[in-house]
Amino acid sequence: MTTNRSAYFDHAATTPMESSAISVYAQRMAEVGNASSLHGPGRAARRVVEESRESIARAFGARPSELVFTGGGTESDNLALKGMFWSRNQDAERPILLISAIEHHAILDPAEWLQKHEGAQVVFIPVDERGVVDIRFIDNYLAEHGERVACVCVMWANNEIGTVQPIADVVAAAHEYGVPVHCDAVQAAGHLEVDFAESGLDSMAITAHKLGGPVGVGALFVRRELTLTPVIHGGGQERTIRSGTLDVAGIAAFAQAVSVASARRAEESARLALIRDDLVTRVRQAIPSAVLRGIDPFGPDRELRLPGNAHFTFENCEGDSLIYLLDSQGVAASTGSACQAGVPQPSHVLLAMGIEEREARGALRFSLGNTTSAEDVDLLLDVLPQAVERASAAGLASAGISR
Amino acid sequence: MTTNRSAYFDHAATTPMESSAISVYAQRMAEVGNASSLHGPGRAARRVVEESRESIARAFGARPSELVFTGGGTESDNLALKGMFWSRNQDAERPILLISAIEHHAILDPAEWLQKHEGAQVVFIPVDERGVVDIRFIDNYLAEHGERVACVCVMWANNEIGTVQPIADVVAAAHEYGVPVHCDAVQAAGHLEVDFAESGLDSMAITAHKLGGPVGVGALFVRRELTLTPVIHGGGQERTIRSGTLDVAGIAAFAQAVSVASARRAEESARLALIRDDLVTRVRQAIPSAVLRGIDPFGPDRELRLPGNAHFTFENCEGDSLIYLLDSQGVAASTGSACQAGVPQPSHVLLAMGIEEREARGALRFSLGNTTSAEDVDLLLDVLPQAVERASAAGLASAGISR
Repeated sequence: MTTNRSAYFDHAATTPMESSAISVYAQRMAEVGNASSLHGPGRAARRVVEESRESIARAFGARPSELVFTGGGTESDNLALKGMFWSRNQDAERPILLISAIEHHAILDPAEWLQKHEGAQVVFIPVDERGVVDIRFIDNYLAEHGERVACVCVMWANNEIGTVQPIADVVAAAHEYGVPVHCDAVQAAGHLEVDFAESGLDSMAITAHKLGGPVGVGALFVRRELTLTPVIHGGGQERTIRSGTLDVAGIAAFAQAVSVASARRAEESARLALIRDDLVTRVRQAIPSAVLRGIDPFGPDRELRLPGNAHFTFENCEGDSLIYLLDSQGVAASTGSACQAGVPQPSHVLLAMGIEEREARGALRFSLGNTTSAEDVDLLLDVLPQAVERASAAGLASAGISR
Repeated sequence: MTTNRSAYFDHAATTPMESSAISVYAQRMAEVGNASSLHGPGRAARRVVEESRESIARAFGARPSELVFTGGGTESDNLALKGMFWSRNQDAERPILLISAIEHHAILDPAEWLQKHEGAQVVFIPVDERGVVDIRFIDNYLAEHGERVACVCVMWANNEIGTVQPIADVVAAAHEYGVPVHCDAVQAAGHLEVDFAESGLDSMAITAHKLGGPVGVGALFVRRELTLTPVIHGGGQERTIRSGTLDVAGIAAFAQAVSVASARRAEESARLALIRDDLVTRVRQAIPSAVLRGIDPFGPDRELRLPGNAHFTFENCEGDSLIYLLDSQGVAASTGSACQAGVPQPSHVLLAMGIEEREARGALRFSLGNTTSAEDVDLLLDVLPQAVERASAAGLASAGISR
């Protein structure tokens, strides 16, 4: 088998930039001007920022004044969680962060720090075996402790297993008790219909590089009524919620990528879902012991799975071994979050879904995107069965079981 | 006078990207790969990051392991100041932040927040009339309160008046009492010789867009022995000090810009100093009431002024009025920090230097950079005298004094 074929199944980690967004970036990079400066070049830069703000806000059903530019999804999540925790604890004691058990580390880690360092109390919202948060738990918990909760935090769609959360129900439950809701929509933006106003959310994080824009630019949508304590203080850019020189070129490219992604979304999501379904069917046929995790893409709730996500666990395998075996054949995949790659621990997402640690170790995520074609699945099926066989043999051997 | 001539004198706010850095950026943008991913594209991205880290570290006399990539100078300063404050207060009570009175808002504002919110106590180090920090004050203060000081914070060169600080003396004074020193070297990097190891500093912030790189990428140099509490928690990238997907393209372009700036530095600084001196001489001739602020570029300490900085106050004028008048003639200048543009307050830097509020309002900064030519000064001198005359007349009129 030659290895000059290759397939990139890690679009959820980062996806190639749209060529038109690269053009916008390159064009704007050649111009100078700090968007905070009062002179002509500064005002021209400011215009680019404000036009981009309007365009991105419109695509996500938000008002331009609700959009705060940041350095990416992780920063947006930190700003929302810490910002709400600090601001909501200024005039009352609301130490509790009620967050889903399957959040990204950009939420889990700030929450843990707030608990260790700032007196927060983290309470996890359980999920079912498909990774869907338990609305009744939220409701019951808030009925008893609502007054002491700083915020509820549930992601729009999970980055590992692709499960779309019932955000409207989360918001309804939280708002009944006057508790604001933050949502990490990093994986959903550009792939699902994400409407900030309609969602009722109080804050929502997105990032450019998951939808065809550059790395290093993100946004936090923040309702005007919501007060956030900044995480990064300084010059007072972005309504004093976030300081730092605005990345005019990056913001313009972000807007371009959002515009392209929005225009293509319905068609592209349908296309990816078809390829994904093919992938799932053929992996199941080729490797009967593989278990698909998350929402059944062929069941009645199939809309609750990200169109570009397939996630399996492979019996007796270590996900990392599979990644290296596939990589040697030109196939790029991941065990889950790239941000946790190389960390030899089973995914907290799978554990929260009730999957045993041993099984969770064999996790492999295939995430599809704009460059994915049907031929990528052909290549995957050419190499996956053998990789699983070898990883499984190694796993059994290291467990002291010979075949 | 026609307005199709133009001159950009605001390089300290942001400077045009080096064309080779744009090329590096555009080239890397077309490739995909999250530097935290284990597969081939991820490892290729990681290689770019680590090669860039080595190259930037080398240029600033640091070890690669001492370089933490961030989203820019403001974030780097926040990370250093908050990070040291939090970590140094874990095992002892060290609430005091000893910071120079002329720091950038990226230091002042986090310090103020730490004071209001986290129990810090901010003590300002005074400066003399040229904007040089008072080493004896640091020494005396630490002799008495050293054990209760979290960190000392003095910038390498001031962004408004261009005064270079005696960093070696600051470090010597602070280290005598075991207190770490953070330095904002944003304005110095690329323009002066900045050597982290030789400086003895414990942490040092730089940013790409002030030296020909892209906006949105910066670095914090951190001694291995120094523990910093993160400001942005998450996936644990960058030694867990700073989380967030690494901006591979931005980092590669940053390295390219540093490389070009380092190679050209001596020659370019000499070139800019000559143009700056010409500018100063001619402004003084044309407008005798103009007062140059900061270090005398023709005096024995001339090396203690950034080569590309000229800063004046103009009698009876409002700096903002001057900016608009110059802008209408194609000249871009600033009153001081772009981050504070439009804020109708006299500069804290000038006030700290003992300049009266009335005088400080007439401040104008000309900052030179890679695109600056002798002809830019010609244009400036063609339009500045009339602008000052008009702004002064308006200022006198609004003060009720007719001429």
